[in-house]
Amino acid sequence: VNEVGEPGELGVIAILGVGLIGGSLGLALREAGVTREVVAWNRGSAAGRHALECGAIDRLAESPREAVAGADLVVIATPVGVVVPLMREILPRLAPDAVVTDVGSTKRRIVAEAEAILGERFVGGHPMAGSEESGISAASASLFEGATWVLTPTERTGACALERVRRLAEATGAVPRECAPCDHDRWIATLSHLPHLGAYGIAAIARKTCGDGAADMTGGSFRDGTRVAESDPGLWTGILLDNRDAALDALDDLSSWLDRARAAIERGDAGALHDMLTAARDARKWFRNER
Amino acid sequence: VNEVGEPGELGVIAILGVGLIGGSLGLALREAGVTREVVAWNRGSAAGRHALECGAIDRLAESPREAVAGADLVVIATPVGVVVPLMREILPRLAPDAVVTDVGSTKRRIVAEAEAILGERFVGGHPMAGSEESGISAASASLFEGATWVLTPTERTGACALERVRRLAEATGAVPRECAPCDHDRWIATLSHLPHLGAYGIAAIARKTCGDGAADMTGGSFRDGTRVAESDPGLWTGILLDNRDAALDALDDLSSWLDRARAAIERGDAGALHDMLTAARDARKWFRNER
Repeated sequence: VNEVGEPGELGVIAILGVGLIGGSLGLALREAGVTREVVAWNRGSAAGRHALECGAIDRLAESPREAVAGADLVVIATPVGVVVPLMREILPRLAPDAVVTDVGSTKRRIVAEAEAILGERFVGGHPMAGSEESGISAASASLFEGATWVLTPTERTGACALERVRRLAEATGAVPRECAPCDHDRWIATLSHLPHLGAYGIAAIARKTCGDGAADMTGGSFRDGTRVAESDPGLWTGILLDNRDAALDALDDLSSWLDRARAAIERGDAGALHDMLTAARDARKWFRNER
Repeated sequence: VNEVGEPGELGVIAILGVGLIGGSLGLALREAGVTREVVAWNRGSAAGRHALECGAIDRLAESPREAVAGADLVVIATPVGVVVPLMREILPRLAPDAVVTDVGSTKRRIVAEAEAILGERFVGGHPMAGSEESGISAASASLFEGATWVLTPTERTGACALERVRRLAEATGAVPRECAPCDHDRWIATLSHLPHLGAYGIAAIARKTCGDGAADMTGGSFRDGTRVAESDPGLWTGILLDNRDAALDALDDLSSWLDRARAAIERGDAGALHDMLTAARDARKWFRNER
């Protein structure tokens, strides 16, 4: 068995979409020296050329099909709505033993549809890395360093395919872990969708409620708590609609918590409010300590 | 007129409560060398001794009254519920020309009650600095560096009192600005209470919804977005109940925004959702750029 990091062991990698994630992946893999070649395609050719110039990729292909021809491992790093259409498009040119993975923030639908197209050669993935920034200009070789890279194999997933994607994740410095697609979607709705929705909501309300003079009255709680409200609205529209049921459940949980807090504040119930905040504080500490 | 920073110009400062804010204030003032003496009282004497040992204060008093005897400027840096009771307690020992200020996160009620007790000698204040940590062990001389320090004078506030508190703020490296108490409370409910309530709520839900295995699936949006959920529940119970009306209004605004987002997700309305997220993204950018 090869050790991770053996020169070129991952072979030829095709990355479809060189935004923040795809571009950072190219930079990390090339820095690790674990690929023979990193080929990429990007919908906008300017960003593709930028990726080439900044050393995130070895070669820029003209089309998704051209990018995957000869690739050992294909990484689809586009908005979630484009993942499966791209899969259909590249299928005719995919080598028989090529493995395909994605980095989408939702997994249940993508994995089900991808397996119908690719069978055991597909492994769903979601690196827990990123930021409110997007695009190749924000890419960094260290983006995945220490981050969890969720893999969502099913009973159909091939063992070799899974192993290859695991090595891909490890080569970037990430820590791969497995998770069922439905658990992933449910958990991520709370752990990632809610912080995004809360940030978007608070930022929108603040601009409406506060006068122009309030800009210098933001403290750390606003700055950190709404940071991800600068995330790309198109990307997040796609994610939230794709993970609709889990997102609705998570929103209902949040609304119900906020309603209970509101009721406690309205009736001046210090005991009830204190209990809610204490449980929440303990929960946050649990996440920090367990991590 | 003395320049800010002239040695000892602020005279003798009494700080009631040497937690994160009071302790950092002592450190900053002593580092700036603008006081003749920093005397403090703290409800718990262990923290008071810690403040003395770490150089945040010159002298530890046994009681609030002892602390303020001979002080030119008194800073009440306790939880909001204790500010006015302390004011009543120190009144008999306060020098006739001593100025009093506070650092509480709510201002309308405190200012009204404080003016009834102290008249023109009181200036409401709220430095927009702090963190989820609390206590003297988290104190830092640079906590206020570059932070906005809100002052809430009214038509009753004495000009000299306001000037003295402004100089106190400037001596710590903060940027003082004036704001009417009611504007402060309304704005801060959105800019600070909502990020705290959102953080507490999301942390509480996450612990309940996600299995023990989900701790390593938190990304940056959860970490930053729920950071302040580790804030002291007692402190925040007091703040939210004290700023009840504005907190309820802000919560209603957030619930209504989340309801609209929920409806758009439920009916799969990408256009409406995209519009909401785009407006929110632009709002967040406005705050960042204006600051």
